[in-house]
Amino acid sequence: MSKLIIDMMGSDKGSEMSKSAVRMFKKSHPDCELVLVGKKEELSDMDGYKIIEATDVVKMEMGALEILRMKDSSMLKAVEALKNENADGVVSAGSTGAFLSAATLILKKIEGVQRPALVTSFPNFKKGGFLSVLDVGASNANTAIELDQFAIMGSLYSKCVNNLDKPLVKLLSNGSEEGKGSPLGKEAYQLLKEDKRINFGGNIEASKVLADDADVVVTDGYSGNVMLKSIEGSAKAMGSLLKKAFKRNIFSKIGYLLSKKGIVEMKGQLDPKKTGGALLLGVNGVVVKAHGNSDPEAFKNAIELAYRLSEGHIVSKIKEGLLA
Amino acid sequence: MSKLIIDMMGSDKGSEMSKSAVRMFKKSHPDCELVLVGKKEELSDMDGYKIIEATDVVKMEMGALEILRMKDSSMLKAVEALKNENADGVVSAGSTGAFLSAATLILKKIEGVQRPALVTSFPNFKKGGFLSVLDVGASNANTAIELDQFAIMGSLYSKCVNNLDKPLVKLLSNGSEEGKGSPLGKEAYQLLKEDKRINFGGNIEASKVLADDADVVVTDGYSGNVMLKSIEGSAKAMGSLLKKAFKRNIFSKIGYLLSKKGIVEMKGQLDPKKTGGALLLGVNGVVVKAHGNSDPEAFKNAIELAYRLSEGHIVSKIKEGLLA
Repeated sequence: MSKLIIDMMGSDKGSEMSKSAVRMFKKSHPDCELVLVGKKEELSDMDGYKIIEATDVVKMEMGALEILRMKDSSMLKAVEALKNENADGVVSAGSTGAFLSAATLILKKIEGVQRPALVTSFPNFKKGGFLSVLDVGASNANTAIELDQFAIMGSLYSKCVNNLDKPLVKLLSNGSEEGKGSPLGKEAYQLLKEDKRINFGGNIEASKVLADDADVVVTDGYSGNVMLKSIEGSAKAMGSLLKKAFKRNIFSKIGYLLSKKGIVEMKGQLDPKKTGGALLLGVNGVVVKAHGNSDPEAFKNAIELAYRLSEGHIVSKIKEGLLA
Repeated sequence: MSKLIIDMMGSDKGSEMSKSAVRMFKKSHPDCELVLVGKKEELSDMDGYKIIEATDVVKMEMGALEILRMKDSSMLKAVEALKNENADGVVSAGSTGAFLSAATLILKKIEGVQRPALVTSFPNFKKGGFLSVLDVGASNANTAIELDQFAIMGSLYSKCVNNLDKPLVKLLSNGSEEGKGSPLGKEAYQLLKEDKRINFGGNIEASKVLADDADVVVTDGYSGNVMLKSIEGSAKAMGSLLKKAFKRNIFSKIGYLLSKKGIVEMKGQLDPKKTGGALLLGVNGVVVKAHGNSDPEAFKNAIELAYRLSEGHIVSKIKEGLLA
């Protein structure tokens, strides 16, 4: 039976959002124990849950160092609770930088893991569903051995979350042929090619990531972050161009109304909230970062993701996987 | 008076496309001398132009090494002609990898330049116009000094092409604050900050590149390539989603017809053909790579870009700029 700690205060939208999410999740998973961390007065109507009081809230713009000084923040207390309460996972919608450093420092790396990795999911327009990319920013410099470990962790993650038997792992590069890539990438390619623990499919270019056979894409944290933010920026730019196109005149406005269903569906496919957020792999505990502007559905999905990884024993699988 | 060499055979669309482009360009620039390289029988109707015969064509999928063996290819002969004919620039729509290596090997680096850089332009939805990014793939590993040189070359390029007095140069990073970035980026930041030859505006995240105040964005070639391809891939994915959304039913099809003007305009803003293509900076000559699927208008724009850089004496300006 899984036990999860929820930072109720991290989101831009306050505790009402997280309370709705918790109630929704609990309905479908009555067996899962949830411990809620936040301001007691705001959580007084959450009967039947264990509450851990935290009077401060880590602000979105706060960085990695600030959080460690905020001893009474809901985020720090939530991460500590994972350890102290012997729980399986922690979920927060607060500042990514702060959450990652708190989780790394307090939970510590899984034995054998050289560096934790931040995993995020992109819609896969070729196969449907999602494709996981790691690292997208936990590190800003990596070694080939770290990339090999990312491949193993990503593969185990994808097995667990997507119920895949042999997830196809590819390596981000500047060309699809063997021999392409940064010096780091070329070195990592050789390790991945020989590694029997993964199903390696070679290099993948960033232009293909949204429409490929791959289930997992491995990259160093710096380039992965560039890719993630490039895709985010493009989607945003195209979204606002599209809005402008529809607002052009009365005809285009009617045009929008007529095509609205498809457009809304399209936006839904691009909605990052569906994936439940990002995840820090490689630390002793399931650490899920929900989007800062999560609505109850998105935050519930983040809790759901933590639940699945906890039920799938991802932490012990990574420990075994790296030893194999 | 500028003299430009045109590879007439490089495009996917054959020589008819490039002939139309040459005629269009010549109409507006009768003073510019154009030398055409390609199959004589296909260029027989190009009266008044000097023709250099080349019987082979470098195929799009051909790489950096293959071209050097294709002694009678239009691309190789065009690059050689820049040198032998004492011309200012060369334009090709053929394979990027092949063109870059031919240009680098035959024309050689400008004195003082450590590495040439591939420059490409992105639409800038904040300021309008375009923003130049370099390097987007000429190298796959760089030093901080190379990034500093990219900043100077990019700045001179932007002055020349966009008529800017002090182009704002930013450094691609994984965060906007000083201190963010890869180890290479952090080192380069310090050089750029102190460099009086450029107007340095600090770090920029990939999510902001399409909508920022920057005129030039400097990056190592590997990450720049990841960014370029991520943006290309996103645009493609969103384009096909949009198409699907409009094809949904009879209402959405009518919706498309009503909003078509705006949508077409939007696609126009994203059209890479408008920029005239990419450019290799740092070699002894103006080297412009037009898109492989250029239409006459796009190829004309590529010739136009080479013309402006030639008239702006970009090569000697880079030589002086690096010594300053």
